[in-house]
Amino acid sequence: MLIVQKYGGTSVGSIDKIQAVANKVAACRAQGNQVVVVVSAMSGVTNNLTAMAFELQKEPSPREMDMLLSTGEQTTIALLSMALQSIGCPARSYTGGQVRILTDSAHTKARIQDIDEEKILNDLDQGEVVVVAGFQGVDEKGNITTLGRGGSDTTAVALAAALKADECQIYTDVDGVYTTDPRVVENARRLDRITFEEMLEMASLGAKVLQIRSVEFASKYNVPLRVLSSFEDGPGTLIGSEDESMMEMPLISGIAFTRDEAKLSVVGVPDVPGMAYKVFGPISDANIEVDVIVQNIGADNTNDITFTVQKKDADAASKLLESIANDMGARGIEVDDKVSKVSLVGVGMRSHAGIASRMFEALSQESINIQLITTSEIKISVIIEEKLLESAVRALHVAFELDQQSE
Amino acid sequence: MLIVQKYGGTSVGSIDKIQAVANKVAACRAQGNQVVVVVSAMSGVTNNLTAMAFELQKEPSPREMDMLLSTGEQTTIALLSMALQSIGCPARSYTGGQVRILTDSAHTKARIQDIDEEKILNDLDQGEVVVVAGFQGVDEKGNITTLGRGGSDTTAVALAAALKADECQIYTDVDGVYTTDPRVVENARRLDRITFEEMLEMASLGAKVLQIRSVEFASKYNVPLRVLSSFEDGPGTLIGSEDESMMEMPLISGIAFTRDEAKLSVVGVPDVPGMAYKVFGPISDANIEVDVIVQNIGADNTNDITFTVQKKDADAASKLLESIANDMGARGIEVDDKVSKVSLVGVGMRSHAGIASRMFEALSQESINIQLITTSEIKISVIIEEKLLESAVRALHVAFELDQQSE
Repeated sequence: MLIVQKYGGTSVGSIDKIQAVANKVAACRAQGNQVVVVVSAMSGVTNNLTAMAFELQKEPSPREMDMLLSTGEQTTIALLSMALQSIGCPARSYTGGQVRILTDSAHTKARIQDIDEEKILNDLDQGEVVVVAGFQGVDEKGNITTLGRGGSDTTAVALAAALKADECQIYTDVDGVYTTDPRVVENARRLDRITFEEMLEMASLGAKVLQIRSVEFASKYNVPLRVLSSFEDGPGTLIGSEDESMMEMPLISGIAFTRDEAKLSVVGVPDVPGMAYKVFGPISDANIEVDVIVQNIGADNTNDITFTVQKKDADAASKLLESIANDMGARGIEVDDKVSKVSLVGVGMRSHAGIASRMFEALSQESINIQLITTSEIKISVIIEEKLLESAVRALHVAFELDQQSE
Repeated sequence: MLIVQKYGGTSVGSIDKIQAVANKVAACRAQGNQVVVVVSAMSGVTNNLTAMAFELQKEPSPREMDMLLSTGEQTTIALLSMALQSIGCPARSYTGGQVRILTDSAHTKARIQDIDEEKILNDLDQGEVVVVAGFQGVDEKGNITTLGRGGSDTTAVALAAALKADECQIYTDVDGVYTTDPRVVENARRLDRITFEEMLEMASLGAKVLQIRSVEFASKYNVPLRVLSSFEDGPGTLIGSEDESMMEMPLISGIAFTRDEAKLSVVGVPDVPGMAYKVFGPISDANIEVDVIVQNIGADNTNDITFTVQKKDADAASKLLESIANDMGARGIEVDDKVSKVSLVGVGMRSHAGIASRMFEALSQESINIQLITTSEIKISVIIEEKLLESAVRALHVAFELDQQSE
């Protein structure tokens, strides 16, 4: 098998940890696999470099930031290659530029356009482990670029796609994806597999195991992703396409939730075109991210438009909304900054009626009042009172039997 | 003027110092110059990286060492560019690879073969300061290489040669080249200028202001070098070719000296061919560096072969020599590990008789016994008793009026 492994900053945060990673990599190769390893900067390094930059300049040039930060991963690849060689495992390191991870020129948030896989494949054929710096690339003019947040995951997935790898393994500090947060539900269960779509819904809803961007990327190129622990052995969770294994998928894969939301409503909005834009234009211009949007029919031929934002943005949003509501001839606004969102996620719900009613029933049995409901193909979300979040998650976990392995 | 400036590790050893360097660079540009800056890693960084490497591997792979160490200079170029931009001076950083400082593949001690000056000249024409990472390059396959000791000086001189710069300024912690060590002779004088040849003799004899390799390189391509202080203002010392200014050159430029030498002699060596090789073959095989070599006619058709080594090598050399002397049928060996070397250096002595006798006279007036004498075109060296070194240097400094500016 050709396997791309990715280790993040905490997994390579010291010389000892780099040696531990080398042992894992060498073991994988000893099983007859070809291995490409993508690594991040040692934890703390990027922050130190960034701090120095900000001492010099309030808004450091993005090109120079990329020049600066890319040294972090370059340090790790050299050290990991040495660690591998010291245990008799042939290895060779490459910067992003050296294996020509070609990106656009959007410094600090560049997007990968192409990868030259030939050098890597040659080295693999000669039995070498190839160690590639994550997070970085070069643009057409040879400037060093970085990929922005979660960039090393993206590098790993892009390499796996370019090399047609059998699996892209993301090593992290958790041992897989869980049905929900184990800190809330004690018997939350590690999932053996989950689809890309479900993972996207889980991730964007707060189960932050993988960067959304790398999941999207893996989904687009159909690269099987596996989330594993750097620190203990175990099979992790495989994230793949639905068609491979649909028959075995349970109805519901997991329960995601988000704390610290605020709910804002404009009530009594005249039922004429353009009202939604009048609300969300100014909100978006103020760089306030909106999560859920629900529009409902209100009384007297008016509508109620409700949405949620992060709690920290509630004040700014409500101030904007007051003048907006006035202009629109709306009756008024309502703000509640003590709400949470709970979501059921599962590709299975697409073909099964009754998931929603089972969800609502479970919540009603706990006397949890549902304030808003939104649905997508594979997700149902409800907004509830903040303090009821944990009991809602626990009730749903039981109701959908998530603690039990599906048959 | 097009000026290449080079700042070493201590000159860029902190954020404050980087800001000070930025001010110097910007001032030079504000005077209407085009400026290329070459920087080393911040002091301490290279040692830290090296220490990590040795924790992982006893003999780290040279390729991976270069990958690792080259991050040090890359960090500095980004930070210096930010510092320049923050004071309104447009700047752009480049790694060695990005301006294609092409080297051979001798990792950790690569030699520069070519530089692509086009990118730099373009940036200069657009008013940018170009900041280049010292010490590093790439080989034909795109592997990162480093140039070994003094590499940043070499980068600066090579860039100056490729760009046909008017001057290559090496900023260091001294404000120029002195007639001799000011710690020995209080009124030692900073030289306004000195020739490449003199500088080479001075440097190799212990006045370690510049790396020999960069002086050779500058001499080969006739790049005027200027040694200046990073920390105070001043004209420094210009190192150039002889023909430019020969008329103004004094007879003697300076007095160099080396402490901690040991003198070894094989006495009564039969006067037949091959004897010198029999002595120095084994010494060289043992990696012992020999400094001065003198062969003299001894008594009874035999020769005396005398040479000096560093004091730390005296024991090893004398042990080797004992068996060698025996094999050769020599009368015996003599070892004195309490000697020093004092050298007069000056292109002027080539055309003037009498320098040697004036030197010997001055030493004799101080009752300093001369043990060995060697001469080259622009240098006379004597080996004397170690404890007399300082009085010899002082006597010569007075005798040749080195404290007085030459007319």
